Amino acid sequence: MNLLRGLTVLIATAVWCLTAAADTALRGTGDLGVIIERADGSACIISTTERAILSCVDGLGDLSHASAVFSPDQRYAYIFGRDGGLTKLDLLERKIAKRVIQGGNSIGGAISDDGTLVAVSNYKPGGVKVFDATTLEQIADIPATYGSEGKLSKTVGLVDAPGRRFVFTLYDAGEIWMADFSKPGAPAITKLGTAGKLPYDALITGDGRHYIAGLFGEDGLAHVDLWAEEPVIERILDGYGKDDPAMPVYKMPHLEGWALAGDKFILPAVGHPELLALDAVTFKEAGRVKVHSQPVFAIARPDGRQVWVNFAHPKNDTVQVVDVPSLKVVHEFKPGPAVLHMEFTPRGHEVWVSVRDADRVDIYDARSFEKRGELSLRKPSGIFFAARATRTGL
Amino acid sequence: MNLLRGLTVLIATAVWCLTAAADTALRGTGDLGVIIERADGSACIISTTERAILSCVDGLGDLSHASAVFSPDQRYAYIFGRDGGLTKLDLLERKIAKRVIQGGNSIGGAISDDGTLVAVSNYKPGGVKVFDATTLEQIADIPATYGSEGKLSKTVGLVDAPGRRFVFTLYDAGEIWMADFSKPGAPAITKLGTAGKLPYDALITGDGRHYIAGLFGEDGLAHVDLWAEEPVIERILDGYGKDDPAMPVYKMPHLEGWALAGDKFILPAVGHPELLALDAVTFKEAGRVKVHSQPVFAIARPDGRQVWVNFAHPKNDTVQVVDVPSLKVVHEFKPGPAVLHMEFTPRGHEVWVSVRDADRVDIYDARSFEKRGELSLRKPSGIFFAARATRTGL
Repeated sequence: MNLLRGLTVLIATAVWCLTAAADTALRGTGDLGVIIERADGSACIISTTERAILSCVDGLGDLSHASAVFSPDQRYAYIFGRDGGLTKLDLLERKIAKRVIQGGNSIGGAISDDGTLVAVSNYKPGGVKVFDATTLEQIADIPATYGSEGKLSKTVGLVDAPGRRFVFTLYDAGEIWMADFSKPGAPAITKLGTAGKLPYDALITGDGRHYIAGLFGEDGLAHVDLWAEEPVIERILDGYGKDDPAMPVYKMPHLEGWALAGDKFILPAVGHPELLALDAVTFKEAGRVKVHSQPVFAIARPDGRQVWVNFAHPKNDTVQVVDVPSLKVVHEFKPGPAVLHMEFTPRGHEVWVSVRDADRVDIYDARSFEKRGELSLRKPSGIFFAARATRTGL
Repeated sequence: MNLLRGLTVLIATAVWCLTAAADTALRGTGDLGVIIERADGSACIISTTERAILSCVDGLGDLSHASAVFSPDQRYAYIFGRDGGLTKLDLLERKIAKRVIQGGNSIGGAISDDGTLVAVSNYKPGGVKVFDATTLEQIADIPATYGSEGKLSKTVGLVDAPGRRFVFTLYDAGEIWMADFSKPGAPAITKLGTAGKLPYDALITGDGRHYIAGLFGEDGLAHVDLWAEEPVIERILDGYGKDDPAMPVYKMPHLEGWALAGDKFILPAVGHPELLALDAVTFKEAGRVKVHSQPVFAIARPDGRQVWVNFAHPKNDTVQVVDVPSLKVVHEFKPGPAVLHMEFTPRGHEVWVSVRDADRVDIYDARSFEKRGELSLRKPSGIFFAARATRTGL
């Protein structure tokens, strides 16, 4: 009987071992990523090398407008849901490692440059919460208090800045704040001042120097040079839309895609069918590009030579590619209904495009524009590659 | 007897399984790297998260002047030895996956933007050989033939350019060539022209646009804008050293460390105790910085705000840190005898410094300059983090 039991245990061990080996074979993580299946609360783990879906993981809650950041070892994705859920997803074991509901309504987050802190931007309660990246235990709560009545502002445009800092914008208060975690204990909060009316999103440049917030309530943007001894907010591109008739805004553009492309920043105009080019040194307008419709994302290919653009409903079946030196549209194609997001491989040889209403993600050669593959997913939206772990502001 | 044999097999399986699990536990690879132990032909695999050596792997041959690139999944390092050895190192299994002797004397290499091709720069036989990144089978041989007698030139400054291209410089011929593997079959070779006398090293900027070769035989550098319709070689910084008395050159500087820092490139002068600042748009001189001695590496912190510099023998115990906007030395310290190399974590929170003759690698906070750790290694030289897989030109 003992012999039998021993045998059973041994057999079970051997079987477990072989099964485990198949499920979780050794593999690098630098080529992994996640794609959000928004309608199903699911995140699919993909490999850019294999151009394949490895596994989809359910149970992540409301993933409308979800985004993701990655741990420095590129094993874990932190996924920010709309319902205040913060999920740590293990890309190797292909399961949820940890999940907390940290707020009532949230929008995006960031991971500190040392990979130890994950910050979440909350609409409700308005402010930013910061968590230990390993345990997801709360480290700090930063209520976005403003005015004399102690109201809490929604926060947007939360990004990592070098030196264990986070920068974010108060939508209702129209302010920009910085939280510095470089010293032990409570973070040092610096209120940088007033950005303008209804800042709706923001970005930080890849070098962590420039923070730029888009304004929905005014015709211009707010810019902070974080390298300055005393960073101050300056208005840029004031009145950029004043000569055009005001148009209904079908979808607010995303600013995260803005990128330095050569010596210009290219960014989507709000409510106008054009991109704005901004001189990267003077921050003055350096040209415009008429595009297909109201742009949503204008994402620079990693070499900065081209910018890929998708568009707001109802003209969201199209992608245009803009050549940066000449500011001309050099390619246009129609992947299908509801092109929601695009993500480049880190050195820019391929780009993945989510076509939500075709339940498909397309993979293109980013230079020849040839299609290299396609994957079936359920209403795919955001695409996030683990190489973001190596970049500031992504 | 059959039962016993069965039991033995089961026990062996279970033991193997547990041992294998301990040796090769699941882990991400984004925070891994290798440090060359030059004297011992060994590469040590490290974790930047743990600030620890995971394992050292011997048998890599002559590793003087060795360098490494990484596969897109960040599981494999390709290590280029001086003896023509090309070694594919498995960072997870911590062993040599494959090794070939591909030439008689070689100096550095590169991996294509799609991660499928590994190219090696050879002194003997002079030229570039290209290998399949998976199998290390030879894909292409590009002899660097020049002159009427069919001589072969040593090649240097081999880098990856976007679009499955490699750019390299012919030391003896003074030429710059490009090999384009974007189409199936043999590569298209473009001879870009004459760079000048004795080009000794080169770099490509992080956006893959500018290729710059340093000249040992002339007082200036050669620059190519790879975005041009017909790229041509132009001389820049002509006569930058002409007002200074010629000094013996203790060690040729490395150019790979050059980086865009804000709106300037900072690069080490040859034979002079100074750095040159180059305007990133006009490529004209934008200032100089007097430093401790003849610089070897001038490496920009990833945010570009500061440049860290080490020096040639006999003054190689020192590191200086230069603030880029003001072009002033803001910090100096002496880690110990023979500081050979420095490598930043990808978002720049820490920097690893090899101090060869102290048999030590030091880890510093890259902003406060506080020491965060130190590791014992045998005569450490080059330090290479796997995040290089996500960057052009590294």
